[in-house]
Amino acid sequence: MVILYAVHAFDKAHLVMLAEQGLIPREAAVAMVRSLRATEADGFEKARGAAGGGLHSGEHLLIRQLGEDVGGHVHLGRSSGDLGAVSARIVQRDALLDVMAELNALRATTLEVAESHAETVMPGYLQGQHAQPVTLGHYLAGWAAVLERDFARAREAYGRINESPAGAAIMTGSDFPVDRHRVSDLLGFDRPSQNTLDAILSNDSLLDSFAVLAFLNADLSRWAEDVLLWTTSEFDLAEIPDRFCGTSSILMQMKSPYAPEFVKGLGAAAVGGLVTAFIVERSATGLALLDRQYSYDALWRLQRDSLRDLRWWRELLASLEWNVGRMEALAGEHWATATDLAGALVRERGLPWRTAHQIVGILVRLAEERGLVPGDVTTELLDEAAVEYQGEPVGLSGDAIRQALDPRHFIGARHLYGGPAPETLRRGVDELRASLERDEAALESAAERVASAQRALETAVDALLDDHKGTES
Amino acid sequence: MVILYAVHAFDKAHLVMLAEQGLIPREAAVAMVRSLRATEADGFEKARGAAGGGLHSGEHLLIRQLGEDVGGHVHLGRSSGDLGAVSARIVQRDALLDVMAELNALRATTLEVAESHAETVMPGYLQGQHAQPVTLGHYLAGWAAVLERDFARAREAYGRINESPAGAAIMTGSDFPVDRHRVSDLLGFDRPSQNTLDAILSNDSLLDSFAVLAFLNADLSRWAEDVLLWTTSEFDLAEIPDRFCGTSSILMQMKSPYAPEFVKGLGAAAVGGLVTAFIVERSATGLALLDRQYSYDALWRLQRDSLRDLRWWRELLASLEWNVGRMEALAGEHWATATDLAGALVRERGLPWRTAHQIVGILVRLAEERGLVPGDVTTELLDEAAVEYQGEPVGLSGDAIRQALDPRHFIGARHLYGGPAPETLRRGVDELRASLERDEAALESAAERVASAQRALETAVDALLDDHKGTES
Amino acid sequence: MVILYAVHAFDKAHLVMLAEQGLIPREAAVAMVRSLRATEADGFEKARGAAGGGLHSGEHLLIRQLGEDVGGHVHLGRSSGDLGAVSARIVQRDALLDVMAELNALRATTLEVAESHAETVMPGYLQGQHAQPVTLGHYLAGWAAVLERDFARAREAYGRINESPAGAAIMTGSDFPVDRHRVSDLLGFDRPSQNTLDAILSNDSLLDSFAVLAFLNADLSRWAEDVLLWTTSEFDLAEIPDRFCGTSSILMQMKSPYAPEFVKGLGAAAVGGLVTAFIVERSATGLALLDRQYSYDALWRLQRDSLRDLRWWRELLASLEWNVGRMEALAGEHWATATDLAGALVRERGLPWRTAHQIVGILVRLAEERGLVPGDVTTELLDEAAVEYQGEPVGLSGDAIRQALDPRHFIGARHLYGGPAPETLRRGVDELRASLERDEAALESAAERVASAQRALETAVDALLDDHKGTES
Amino acid sequence: MVILYAVHAFDKAHLVMLAEQGLIPREAAVAMVRSLRATEADGFEKARGAAGGGLHSGEHLLIRQLGEDVGGHVHLGRSSGDLGAVSARIVQRDALLDVMAELNALRATTLEVAESHAETVMPGYLQGQHAQPVTLGHYLAGWAAVLERDFARAREAYGRINESPAGAAIMTGSDFPVDRHRVSDLLGFDRPSQNTLDAILSNDSLLDSFAVLAFLNADLSRWAEDVLLWTTSEFDLAEIPDRFCGTSSILMQMKSPYAPEFVKGLGAAAVGGLVTAFIVERSATGLALLDRQYSYDALWRLQRDSLRDLRWWRELLASLEWNVGRMEALAGEHWATATDLAGALVRERGLPWRTAHQIVGILVRLAEERGLVPGDVTTELLDEAAVEYQGEPVGLSGDAIRQALDPRHFIGARHLYGGPAPETLRRGVDELRASLERDEAALESAAERVASAQRALETAVDALLDDHKGTES
Repeated sequence: MVILYAVHAFDKAHLVMLAEQGLIPREAAVAMVRSLRATEADGFEKARGAAGGGLHSGEHLLIRQLGEDVGGHVHLGRSSGDLGAVSARIVQRDALLDVMAELNALRATTLEVAESHAETVMPGYLQGQHAQPVTLGHYLAGWAAVLERDFARAREAYGRINESPAGAAIMTGSDFPVDRHRVSDLLGFDRPSQNTLDAILSNDSLLDSFAVLAFLNADLSRWAEDVLLWTTSEFDLAEIPDRFCGTSSILMQMKSPYAPEFVKGLGAAAVGGLVTAFIVERSATGLALLDRQYSYDALWRLQRDSLRDLRWWRELLASLEWNVGRMEALAGEHWATATDLAGALVRERGLPWRTAHQIVGILVRLAEERGLVPGDVTTELLDEAAVEYQGEPVGLSGDAIRQALDPRHFIGARHLYGGPAPETLRRGVDELRASLERDEAALESAAERVASAQRALETAVDALLDDHKGTES
Repeated sequence: MVILYAVHAFDKAHLVMLAEQGLIPREAAVAMVRSLRATEADGFEKARGAAGGGLHSGEHLLIRQLGEDVGGHVHLGRSSGDLGAVSARIVQRDALLDVMAELNALRATTLEVAESHAETVMPGYLQGQHAQPVTLGHYLAGWAAVLERDFARAREAYGRINESPAGAAIMTGSDFPVDRHRVSDLLGFDRPSQNTLDAILSNDSLLDSFAVLAFLNADLSRWAEDVLLWTTSEFDLAEIPDRFCGTSSILMQMKSPYAPEFVKGLGAAAVGGLVTAFIVERSATGLALLDRQYSYDALWRLQRDSLRDLRWWRELLASLEWNVGRMEALAGEHWATATDLAGALVRERGLPWRTAHQIVGILVRLAEERGLVPGDVTTELLDEAAVEYQGEPVGLSGDAIRQALDPRHFIGARHLYGGPAPETLRRGVDELRASLERDEAALESAAERVASAQRALETAVDALLDDHKGTES
Repeated sequence: MVILYAVHAFDKAHLVMLAEQGLIPREAAVAMVRSLRATEADGFEKARGAAGGGLHSGEHLLIRQLGEDVGGHVHLGRSSGDLGAVSARIVQRDALLDVMAELNALRATTLEVAESHAETVMPGYLQGQHAQPVTLGHYLAGWAAVLERDFARAREAYGRINESPAGAAIMTGSDFPVDRHRVSDLLGFDRPSQNTLDAILSNDSLLDSFAVLAFLNADLSRWAEDVLLWTTSEFDLAEIPDRFCGTSSILMQMKSPYAPEFVKGLGAAAVGGLVTAFIVERSATGLALLDRQYSYDALWRLQRDSLRDLRWWRELLASLEWNVGRMEALAGEHWATATDLAGALVRERGLPWRTAHQIVGILVRLAEERGLVPGDVTTELLDEAAVEYQGEPVGLSGDAIRQALDPRHFIGARHLYGGPAPETLRRGVDELRASLERDEAALESAAERVASAQRALETAVDALLDDHKGTES
Repeated sequence: MVILYAVHAFDKAHLVMLAEQGLIPREAAVAMVRSLRATEADGFEKARGAAGGGLHSGEHLLIRQLGEDVGGHVHLGRSSGDLGAVSARIVQRDALLDVMAELNALRATTLEVAESHAETVMPGYLQGQHAQPVTLGHYLAGWAAVLERDFARAREAYGRINESPAGAAIMTGSDFPVDRHRVSDLLGFDRPSQNTLDAILSNDSLLDSFAVLAFLNADLSRWAEDVLLWTTSEFDLAEIPDRFCGTSSILMQMKSPYAPEFVKGLGAAAVGGLVTAFIVERSATGLALLDRQYSYDALWRLQRDSLRDLRWWRELLASLEWNVGRMEALAGEHWATATDLAGALVRERGLPWRTAHQIVGILVRLAEERGLVPGDVTTELLDEAAVEYQGEPVGLSGDAIRQALDPRHFIGARHLYGGPAPETLRRGVDELRASLERDEAALESAAERVASAQRALETAVDALLDDHKGTES
């Protein structure tokens, strides 16, 4: 049961608070935390599994070990409601921290590979055609920007998820003066939730978790589509290393690239899970409750597989073999640079863009009819197109034409903000890296807050045990 | 065509920038912005509709009016790619500002009604049963907290949506020195997007818009379920005013409460739209493009209906007739306060919670077997239950029992953070109101940034026209 | 691994066919089927689990036991492709047979309970209001009609699912003369699939399975909503027996009705699973493959839980305690019969329907303004309404009014086809029962076809072993 | 309003039945049908639009023209409930007939093109790799099989959709003896629905419509993915004719293939629509109603676009230019035939399949390491691989190797049932064509039933008018 560790922490924090507030006999509190501590030596999951009761395994265990007179105190001021909600949020919070860490690692790798390919020219695809030359570095930096947004979504959702429902019991809290802020702090939450009814009966924070992972996996899924396409023998732009592939029982020449295929599958399952969760949460407030189990189960699976895929993808990206030669060759073959020939006419002949565009359009048609490729374009051919359109030639020199149609020149001329010219792209990578560093610091701080709460909880338990030892002597 | 106004603004901003950068002849720029201005007197949508061309209606119109020699300059340095992306983002951004404004208005109304019902006791439902007493105010304050999170989601998505793809053309920008920051500023964007390929070929900002509206409508949909349930003659907790209802052609006694039913329908359609958009964006980068039309159409419909529903809901909430008397009567009828009788045993007899809980559980069973209601519980009956469980009575006085089972006392005793005790709830409402005010200020600031950009664009157009007038004279 | 039993059957059928066709040495075939038989004594799942290899566990096991010289023959003429497809279809087919059997059992119970409540008058709800009186029997017979359609969907999908991909290998079959009809027959399929490429690379039969279960669970989910609503203390039309409920740790008065809540949850998860599967199958033909694992896993879970829910629902339905007295009382309280007062005016006074409708509409308004209930309507009051509308009275007698407003009379007068009058309803139940019997026979026949194939497979294995024994001696 | 024509037909059929049953004055009936007929000359949609009232436009129009004394009779015995349900089913039924007709036309074209390419060898793709040679004809025949299943789904759903809710009013029908069978017949329904409550409050027939179109569009969407992939310059297996493409404003070399892209988009929207409809129908029976509007609107759009896409696809398929030469060349380049070299070792050297498979696997690895292609494989190389695996050579002749590795031989050897050998494929096409003819006949018969009902309705109207003319004279 994936959430037992979170229930265990809540049991301890709740007992510390009950003792500190003087709501239960101190001796009982001490006995109970001592018992819980004792289960940790041998793995509390084992002890709790044996005691049974799931969310209530703490009470089961304590009553079994200490009798109802002592163990029967543990549930004062709480309910299945906050037991379930607190543990679900801890698990979501912790998984989100892991996802954010993996995301940042992937961003770092992506930027590194992007930078190293700032000058690798390749075709930029649109509607399955060569629209313009791009660079592999520019393409990959675009993915780093996508992942930056995915991190932002995770970080924002984290702020809503990491709120403590503890003490809200089932909807109204308790008539005992439980200290919700104390338990929230001991469990690493950012704050107690603001309304006890909302804390239990609303569940949009679960949808937040799903949405973060649906976006992330949708993005990875598109990336996986790119990789699957580029590694066909027809595209042949990259090769997936054997260690990311299985073999076939009948087709000895085949590789089974499981990483991108499972990534695609998870992208689909993430949308399915999101749909499930949205549907479950539509019922009238409080009308149904147990149906949430289907959402939780789907989320736990999705968290686990998302972490696996983020790791796979980083390793895959770092080891993909790019077919740089073919990329560059393809970039010049299919008129991807035609835009810039029109641009040259604007710049050097003062034509309006539309006029230049129409002339080059005719040129491309003429060339294709005659089986000519970009390298075959001459001043005469361009003039033939110009005369057809506007009745007079444009007289662009062969050198100007060749330069305009050269993919590498095309890239080098695009130094507008966000563009692919190598030095511009490198500045872009630097910007993305600076933002990654800020995000790493923010994540570090969030993770440290949780870690220090865990230490504070153990310290509080120690204090309870020590203090009592003092009074015993 | 919903996005024409955004295309119009982009055409003007692009021309201003081209003129300022000296990329096209100044006279042509002046003539073109003058023509565009002229269409505004009579409604530019009309002129553009007549010119045809959709995203390209500006060029169509300008070439028709000014000839290709002049109008043919307008598209220099851009493409269908950024025309579509810029206008889609403007429309999403503007709709999001409207949605956030309506959301805040609904939050204000919700808090007002919540505060006025801080003492209206009613049953709190769980799994269709009376779990505990709550107050209508506490319930409604819970909704204000939900809406606060919906605002946060919108505000965060806004930050990703309001980035300018202008100048990215189709993926690599242009070899002309277009000033992407200038166009971004003139159109009220927060910044130009960081990578020109990502700016056009990624579309997760569209998914952000869908997600915001899917969350919002999922929440309103659940609220509508509550209202539909509460207004049945069986529940009879509230009545929907006639003006939110249609009539029936055959059933003269019926009212057709269209507002909550359409709200529910939109909640369903929002999930459907989100699914459509997630699926569309899965294709390999750039492999398909026109299929996005299905996402856009769904989003425009969703934005329009979301605004309608937010308004409806605010008006409905302000005018719902609450059946306060029945709420209070129901709150005491079904053992919803049993929790606090157990609490009294803990507090006054020092029993462990579990023991107290078991005794009260037996008491409820005995009472139901004998047809007794909470008001019938006596010291003797409670003792009978106690003896059955632990072999000895607990001896709680009739007064203590009555107090423990009183719904109003139940509420009054819950002054823990986030609880329903009236003074606590009022503090909670104050907290929510303070946060609403912060959000209103943030929204105001975002909206003002857009409005001032609109003024700056007109000023820049004026400057271009005036300046030229000067040089003409 | 849920599909191992299906792989086991395929291994045996394939070996029988290979031997019969003389494609592998007879001794090898005999040794292999003998080995497979031997694993059955102690549970073939165990032996296969130990051998590893999943779909290929048969080959692993046989090579381990008999060496590659013998066991290496088993895969001749097939591939992971048909191993996966055949076993997935067997599992779907078998689950569908089970689902259909449970569906029919539920239909039988539904009709039985419906018939026994042919005269139990209750409110018929529309938009949360009392639209007209119905009977519990009529309502339940409506559910039997829904389930009849669900059976039809399952039966039709069965026809598409129970086709054999065996021998299609990965897409083109084999250059060895494998007998696809023979293997199809031995595995209980209705026929071999018509095109070997389609057999493996298309997977819409999987979507068929999902769709059947999505419809079924959507229907059960709506039914569960009805039950949850009707068992609130406000509606109080029925009570769920304790054995379908858990208890609460804090709320001693509560019951946790897990059956309808899990049914609702599964209804949500079924839509999520369907979405996942639709998305997975969108990729270009053969582009991805392993991503289907996410669909399969979701389907196996959905099949398992659907069977559980169908059983739960039948048992729940048979044991729900209906609050017949309250049903009848409510049916007369809220003007649900107003329609028939208008009908009486048409019938006895010759008014057009619209006129009669308007008069009764005014009557209801007058009555509600004066706090009158249906039993208070007099000739004078009706005439007051008539005069207000048409300037003259209608003069309906008090007896006629009382009769028209009586719920039991309302029901008794509706003997049009499909209507709720008790004798009409009983004829309707008979029709539904006749159709259930036809469906039971069809299911029986489909199930027997599968069972007899299983016997035929064992017989063929016996024959192979016996025949060989003969030749050995 | 898409459904007005269906409302019009229902109004006429209902009046004919009321008159035949003598439930309203014959003169009124005659006057009303005469009025409705009269609106048809100038387009009844216009008259109804002017009268207003949507579903109730018939009553609005008749009261306006004939006064409430006459026109007020039209709604006797029905309600908004069956008005909405009847018209929605007519629209669904008619759209389904159109969809089935277009589907069959596409099947015919697909089979024709398939047959003409029975010998066009090409690579068969799996996981983006060349798995085996197939033929274009075999691939296309596979699509014909897919469409055959889509037709079956439509035909089966048709049986559930084409049931008449007429006379069910809002849930219980009427206390007037309306003849539901007569109205059902006059409107071309197959039968009246069996239970009046189910007829209106259930709506799974709507989900049936969505499911049919979701399957169909999912299939077309996958096909569109294939076409988009195959028409990239990298694959270059086919070219989309210009008339299915738009042009680009900036990229003069590009074509914008709108047909496959919109087909993909609709495939996504169909899943979104299905999700919307499933969610809407989850509410408790009758709890909500107007939210169905979102489902209906989505369905009308989906029906319209599905018909467009089916036509586009048929035209596209008939005019796609296949690059046959490249297909054949590619088929032999990438070891797609390796399977059959292993087969040859089994057949000619008696090796177990696994052994042969392993040897050929080593051969492929050796060849790739040495930069050899299939045409370079010699007896020696194969023996080197064999020795590496089993310590001894296999001695297959160069001719046998060449034959085994020849794609055309590979295809020709696959004459198992459902396989791609040309004569086998042609038999497969014949089977599919025979089944298409059966389906065409079934569709013809369903369509004729509807058409003859339309004639019968007009005849009944004539009879009513004529008969009355007789009595007038």
